[in-house]
Amino acid sequence: MAVYTEVSDEALTAFLSAYEIGTLLSYKGIAEGVENTNFFLHTTAGSYILTLYEKRVREGDLPFFLNLMEHLAARDLACPQPIRNRDGAALGRLCGRPAVIVSFLDGVSVKRPGLHHCGELGRALAGLHAAGADFGMVRENSLSVEAWRPLFAVAEAQADTVAPGLGGRTRADLAVLEAGWPRGLPGGVIHADLFTDNVFFIGDRLSGLIDFYFACTDAFAYDLAICLNAWCFDADGTYHRDKGQALIAGYQAVRALEPAEVAALPILCRGAALRFMLTRLVDWLNVPPGALVQPKDPLEYDRRLVFHRDAGRAEDYGWVAESLARASPP
Amino acid sequence: MAVYTEVSDEALTAFLSAYEIGTLLSYKGIAEGVENTNFFLHTTAGSYILTLYEKRVREGDLPFFLNLMEHLAARDLACPQPIRNRDGAALGRLCGRPAVIVSFLDGVSVKRPGLHHCGELGRALAGLHAAGADFGMVRENSLSVEAWRPLFAVAEAQADTVAPGLGGRTRADLAVLEAGWPRGLPGGVIHADLFTDNVFFIGDRLSGLIDFYFACTDAFAYDLAICLNAWCFDADGTYHRDKGQALIAGYQAVRALEPAEVAALPILCRGAALRFMLTRLVDWLNVPPGALVQPKDPLEYDRRLVFHRDAGRAEDYGWVAESLARASPP
Repeated sequence: MAVYTEVSDEALTAFLSAYEIGTLLSYKGIAEGVENTNFFLHTTAGSYILTLYEKRVREGDLPFFLNLMEHLAARDLACPQPIRNRDGAALGRLCGRPAVIVSFLDGVSVKRPGLHHCGELGRALAGLHAAGADFGMVRENSLSVEAWRPLFAVAEAQADTVAPGLGGRTRADLAVLEAGWPRGLPGGVIHADLFTDNVFFIGDRLSGLIDFYFACTDAFAYDLAICLNAWCFDADGTYHRDKGQALIAGYQAVRALEPAEVAALPILCRGAALRFMLTRLVDWLNVPPGALVQPKDPLEYDRRLVFHRDAGRAEDYGWVAESLARASPP
Repeated sequence: MAVYTEVSDEALTAFLSAYEIGTLLSYKGIAEGVENTNFFLHTTAGSYILTLYEKRVREGDLPFFLNLMEHLAARDLACPQPIRNRDGAALGRLCGRPAVIVSFLDGVSVKRPGLHHCGELGRALAGLHAAGADFGMVRENSLSVEAWRPLFAVAEAQADTVAPGLGGRTRADLAVLEAGWPRGLPGGVIHADLFTDNVFFIGDRLSGLIDFYFACTDAFAYDLAICLNAWCFDADGTYHRDKGQALIAGYQAVRALEPAEVAALPILCRGAALRFMLTRLVDWLNVPPGALVQPKDPLEYDRRLVFHRDAGRAEDYGWVAESLARASPP
């Protein structure tokens, strides 16, 4: 949520001269995106977002993200569309950083989603999975189950200083998840970070998805599990099954879950919670001096894990038998 | 340059329901304004800036600033225009803070102004002074000569830790300025903070002035002196007389300086430099832990003061006899 790199009017004007998007009228650094620097651009041709990629994004991954956004936008999924310059390149360089201009999407993030928002999200998520089906690139999920133990190793010694018993709980979770992690589920492109900040609404209508910088190739149902974690819990760890039901029903209105996905939902949800607890824990313990960004609380996900350890069935998350799901309000 | 106050979609939607500016399409926290939190708003009716005033702005001063912007905008000066809600109020409350919506101004701040920019600024500054002539409110300049000694008292003991000899130089400057500060010069509303960030250009044309939160009632020539400091020096303290000449000539193309103002220009410039050195010095020595904003370097103004101490005549700043000024390129 910060501008890490200042961009002068001269540098920006020179950069824009390679694009056919009119004359610069205005640009403002915006407090959005934890990992990158973003500017709102207004030109005589319209509104755009200019992103400068800071250290945490691997430059080699950018073609995957940019091609994916282009692929999805071409299939009418409402997401930022990379703008190519006169040479046909979407990826440029500005102030020493990889830089990209994408189309500006209207919409507002909902801090406290209701049932209707969850239903809309479910439909959009399934639409994203469908639209990505013929995308030709692959990017492994570098934050899946194999990554969790090495991540935890970085934080393990200090885990109990963050919450008593956190180290022990995490070791036990890791053992269960590594032993039981499902393989061979239907998969393809997933967003992998569809938190409320990354989903826009205009009024009641879902108007777009943003921030594809964790997108990767993995199980579709894992993406659903990430969303159930991000959208259906209170910060205190209370799960709202009615929200989960709306989200899953919305998803199934577009793409039916296979029995193996339904069966795997509880462990996928538990794994997704551990993944966010771990990355937050590492960030929490490694705030650099002078940090511009407040780290997110890992204990929000520690509290979600309490629910996941008890929840053994997809029904606990709001999944209902097909006939009922089809009958639920759209 | 930070978002100090988070505003949820629910809080913003409730706030906007009192205004007739259409439906919210988008809002982004923007990294602009050292003292306040600013959001870019896009609605079905257009683009706006929403400002939440943080602690450093005195709430009692807000009617002066808001009425002034309204007064100037009504006289076709390009500046943000406060939007009144259905009850006719420009000043509202949001997230516990005084909050105002103003019209969005296109334009780009020029980091390294050239001669042409300085000329445009001079004309706009004189236009501002003329447009404010019939403004009915008064706000004393709380950062003029009387304020400098108390400001210095806060920093005096530590001044030499910032630069060797800074304390002694400042004491000598204060004595000279307090003894010789000019009184009775033509005056009225001044902007008092017209740094390059607060002046917008589209291409070569000055498109607007923003950030009236230091505006007050004081000598017009002091406003010009502030601009000469902010626009005509390099960071190393080198004065560009050609820029000063363009700025002064631009000003005089709209409003001729009186002889007393010309004579006072050197001391006004020296005073303006000391004012910014002092406020920066105090901020420099008092960065709160966890500050979101990098303090500005007071020594930039300490270096400008070296020039000012030697410069005794308006000519040193680029003022030229009337006939020459009139002949200079517009």
